[in-house]
Amino acid sequence: MPQQRSEETRAHLLDAAVRRFAISGYNAASVDEICAEAGVSKGAFYHHFPSKQAVFLALLDGWLKTIDSGLESMRQATVPETFVEMTRLLPAIFAAADERLPMFLEFWLQASRDEKIWEATIAPYRHYQEYFARLVADGIAEGSLKPETDPQAAGQVILSLAVGLFLQGVLDPHGADWQKVGEESMKILMNGLAS
Amino acid sequence: MPQQRSEETRAHLLDAAVRRFAISGYNAASVDEICAEAGVSKGAFYHHFPSKQAVFLALLDGWLKTIDSGLESMRQATVPETFVEMTRLLPAIFAAADERLPMFLEFWLQASRDEKIWEATIAPYRHYQEYFARLVADGIAEGSLKPETDPQAAGQVILSLAVGLFLQGVLDPHGADWQKVGEESMKILMNGLAS
Repeated sequence: MPQQRSEETRAHLLDAAVRRFAISGYNAASVDEICAEAGVSKGAFYHHFPSKQAVFLALLDGWLKTIDSGLESMRQATVPETFVEMTRLLPAIFAAADERLPMFLEFWLQASRDEKIWEATIAPYRHYQEYFARLVADGIAEGSLKPETDPQAAGQVILSLAVGLFLQGVLDPHGADWQKVGEESMKILMNGLAS
Repeated sequence: MPQQRSEETRAHLLDAAVRRFAISGYNAASVDEICAEAGVSKGAFYHHFPSKQAVFLALLDGWLKTIDSGLESMRQATVPETFVEMTRLLPAIFAAADERLPMFLEFWLQASRDEKIWEATIAPYRHYQEYFARLVADGIAEGSLKPETDPQAAGQVILSLAVGLFLQGVLDPHGADWQKVGEESMKILMNGLAS
């Protein structure tokens, strides 16, 4: 089944890239190293990915898709309850991010110097802001959130809080009980938005 | 006046370091480069700073002190008004951070691999959390915030929001009107905490 083998090769390359990026750093890790770690030829690598950058973007994309499907599974009876429930995802997000932090920081560093990487880096923020804004609009429609709430602004607030929790949780995992902080934070926000 | 000249030399070295870190990056910038940029001898450099890392920490410290005195000048009649007023500092903080972002990212990257740098990186978060927690306690005492509010938890929420706004504002300066987002966010939070 060549299709299946091709997908396995791609998955091996992604796993190997995570390990090499974590050990050597994104800049220092070479395509050769990733191929050696995966036990895959360079020809096979370039069949799947045009560049090391493309591997990174595929990893980012896969990680965001995992978060998306996690978020979708959190729907509760009302929107405020849904947002509070979503904070349960934080420990899993932190655990996944922790081993990838040096990789992300190197990527952000490049993003600050390279327009194209910057676009790819910023896209997830906009994606989640839209996601949260739609959910806030649902909350206004169902009557659980104040009718004068601006969904875009509220989506931005929720995203800012999530980004701040994420950065602190990853930089300082033992500095607080981040799930509790996340849950309390979201309750305060929802209290401020509730109708 | 040798004391005054010594302070001028230190200030020249700090200014030169900001420029070299921005141009070459923190890792690539050498003490030699910083000395050349400042027009100062290596002996004078080591009179003021034991290492390049010490220069970075002095820059971080100076920047935080500027924010601290800015925050102190924001006091209003009540604590909720004070917190909303504080969001006026955001544009200045973003402007100062923007040119330093690559430097910070490199430093965080090192922090993720070096315990001592990590401690220095995390200290400001704890400092601001305490600062906000004390202000929340003042708000409970004055009767403007709910008596059942946990000051530590509320301080953490405000800090998370500030960190999230900061990271997004620096990564995506034109993605939103960050001062407006900050002000709206703080109003929602204060609404959720108000007695």
